[in-house]
Amino acid sequence: MGKALHTDLYELNMAASYLKRGMTGPATFSLFIRSLPEGWGFFVACGLEAALDWLAGLRFEDQDLAYLADVHGYPAQTLDALRDLRFTGEVRAVPEGRVVYPGEPLLELTAPLPEAQLAETYLLNQLTYQTAVASKAARCRLAAPGRQMVDFSLRRVHGVEAGTAVARATAIAGFAATSNVDAARRLGLRATGTMAHSYIEAFPSEEEAFRAFAADFPERVTLLVDTYDTPSGVDKAIEVAGELEARGGALHGIRLDSGDMAALAVDARQRLDEAGLRNVQLFASGALDEHRIAGLAQAPIDAFGVGSKIGVAADAPFLDSVYKLVEVDGRPVAKLSTGKATLPGRKQVWRTEDGDVVGLEDEPGPEGAEPLLVAVMHEGRITAPQTWEDARDRCAADLDRLPEGQRSLKAEAPVVHTSDGLQRLTEEVRAVIRRRELG
Amino acid sequence: MGKALHTDLYELNMAASYLKRGMTGPATFSLFIRSLPEGWGFFVACGLEAALDWLAGLRFEDQDLAYLADVHGYPAQTLDALRDLRFTGEVRAVPEGRVVYPGEPLLELTAPLPEAQLAETYLLNQLTYQTAVASKAARCRLAAPGRQMVDFSLRRVHGVEAGTAVARATAIAGFAATSNVDAARRLGLRATGTMAHSYIEAFPSEEEAFRAFAADFPERVTLLVDTYDTPSGVDKAIEVAGELEARGGALHGIRLDSGDMAALAVDARQRLDEAGLRNVQLFASGALDEHRIAGLAQAPIDAFGVGSKIGVAADAPFLDSVYKLVEVDGRPVAKLSTGKATLPGRKQVWRTEDGDVVGLEDEPGPEGAEPLLVAVMHEGRITAPQTWEDARDRCAADLDRLPEGQRSLKAEAPVVHTSDGLQRLTEEVRAVIRRRELG
Repeated sequence: MGKALHTDLYELNMAASYLKRGMTGPATFSLFIRSLPEGWGFFVACGLEAALDWLAGLRFEDQDLAYLADVHGYPAQTLDALRDLRFTGEVRAVPEGRVVYPGEPLLELTAPLPEAQLAETYLLNQLTYQTAVASKAARCRLAAPGRQMVDFSLRRVHGVEAGTAVARATAIAGFAATSNVDAARRLGLRATGTMAHSYIEAFPSEEEAFRAFAADFPERVTLLVDTYDTPSGVDKAIEVAGELEARGGALHGIRLDSGDMAALAVDARQRLDEAGLRNVQLFASGALDEHRIAGLAQAPIDAFGVGSKIGVAADAPFLDSVYKLVEVDGRPVAKLSTGKATLPGRKQVWRTEDGDVVGLEDEPGPEGAEPLLVAVMHEGRITAPQTWEDARDRCAADLDRLPEGQRSLKAEAPVVHTSDGLQRLTEEVRAVIRRRELG
Repeated sequence: MGKALHTDLYELNMAASYLKRGMTGPATFSLFIRSLPEGWGFFVACGLEAALDWLAGLRFEDQDLAYLADVHGYPAQTLDALRDLRFTGEVRAVPEGRVVYPGEPLLELTAPLPEAQLAETYLLNQLTYQTAVASKAARCRLAAPGRQMVDFSLRRVHGVEAGTAVARATAIAGFAATSNVDAARRLGLRATGTMAHSYIEAFPSEEEAFRAFAADFPERVTLLVDTYDTPSGVDKAIEVAGELEARGGALHGIRLDSGDMAALAVDARQRLDEAGLRNVQLFASGALDEHRIAGLAQAPIDAFGVGSKIGVAADAPFLDSVYKLVEVDGRPVAKLSTGKATLPGRKQVWRTEDGDVVGLEDEPGPEGAEPLLVAVMHEGRITAPQTWEDARDRCAADLDRLPEGQRSLKAEAPVVHTSDGLQRLTEEVRAVIRRRELG
């Protein structure tokens, strides 16, 4: 089945109405996030690759049209128009991996009104959760600079499609690997994994389990030591490490998964060091997020396995993202809804040393400022393909430049200015609407 | 590509180790959720259909095996064993739609150890988020009994796969419709939708937009009235309703999407009633969850459009679900990890008037009690297919019987007893482990 029906019914109904009325003039929609979750200082843009792929492949298959005819009574004329519909528009967007702030368009799309309307649901769907996850993963990275992070989230994210997106978003934020095999294969990421408690329990004793695993995977043995009692698990791992060395191998690491992680890590490090196993790595997992990682940043932990709390962006599982019409047929538009008013006109975001400026696309930017929105699609064709590798590099560079106030886990509100031109246009458009609708 | 790699790498590594060692005796894993989110009184079981489909279809395709060989160095003998591997086991589970409590197995799976281990990641993935969403949707239903609920969440859930699952989970909880067209088509749900603010703005005025929509969709006109000012939007909708009536039609409803919803609903109802439009329905949307719905339960609102907060289960986007080995080769097992200890043995859950009892599978249940775990898969074949329609009926029946303490949005802890037999076995197994591992 085609992907054109991955949308809300009202998008189709509105598009049908526009098509019927010949309302196919150019429209620009702006996709942005209204506000930052509590304590967050920035977003990392993510999800654009999937969004562009959907636009480039937009078409209604015969069975899509049959469903709209049979169940929703769409007339033949509308079905014909939808059959021929392709996305033919322009997209300017913030490349994946870049730091962005609330109110700044992540994407602006200009296309014939029906095409532009149809894109709303899917674009919001992809950009919203992927941006949430990439941002939260970046916060983990800032919480313990230089430590390795691994995505362990597949088992509790919202489906396997989400699992793949999370592996990608965390890679963009700088994670070193993922446990998700299918995502690793698709994206060329490094897949890693240790063992579960069930492996230990399936053997007559913990020691026999350790020995079996070391024999079967001699090149990269990481032993899970908390099934029964962490200190005694560490001691057994040390014994197995000795046997491995006698055969010319080496224990790679041990994993702690429960209890007072900081204290257990200190104790384990000491036991390992005393046994001459200074190269054995300490790996920590279990309900970790940026706050717990920050609390463990002083502990002798080499790598963190990060799961559900990052994979579902637990404190911000959805962001207040919107896709708003800002111009139609050359006419700037806005809505005045209480608490949800929008700013009219096509925009650009300028990055300066004193904070970002949101202005109109045709306004000149501040001296020396960098424009964040770049052309990524022209006449329906992708002109700037997004890859997670490029995005990872951009993310690393932007995080390095992040102002101190936004770098904290309890961040200050970022500075986003509105240009004079945008302020003027907003006042003009609102005055016109008030006269027309309320006068 | 096959779906066998929709898993964590460690499941494959452990399965490979078991296969190499001939550890293919029967193992039973138990999938349960450790605790209820703050204020929640129950879960609604959901996700079993997808879990069973995955098990029934489990096989490694050539390209899966090639990846494991090339990237992970799997030896030929393991690849051969994986090529032949199918799921041949037994599954007992709580049918979808039933109310369950923490610590109660939602599913118990018995199969040769490698097959049983491989199922962990996918089963947790599907049951965890679908149960979270179905439970939260059921809470919405309890918050305003008798009102219609519609799933509006697609734009901010975690991918389109999640969108389909959310449409299904909310339907199981008793939602009347979804905005998600693809999900509606796949599952035979009712798809509904109104219009977006952009539709209003695309026309020269709100009134012209209303008139155009009424002309194009005369059979089910619901007008969005808050784009500029809700009371004046309502007045314009009333005018268009008059024009519709003059042509033999009727306005179906209006939608409120911002502002003080309770006050605006009272005002709108009054304006509509005074205009003789008593049959026009009031539809509310915008950041709704069970708490906001409960706060609006006295307002004259006929239906609620429920979005992101339910679709991502915003206060519990992941549940503390686990899949734990409880028996292997006839030997009951448990882990002792701090704060994460497990209970050994194959289990049954009994529902009684005085609360649920978790016991051993081979123990007799309490007099007159109903067993919740039923056989759903035999020798790898699905014997009790799950459908959302059956699940919806079960959910309605269980919610009707829900004890008052668990019905509240600030629920009391539910009563779950542990049988004498299970307590005894737990003590025995723990004593054996302590002697063996720590003595």
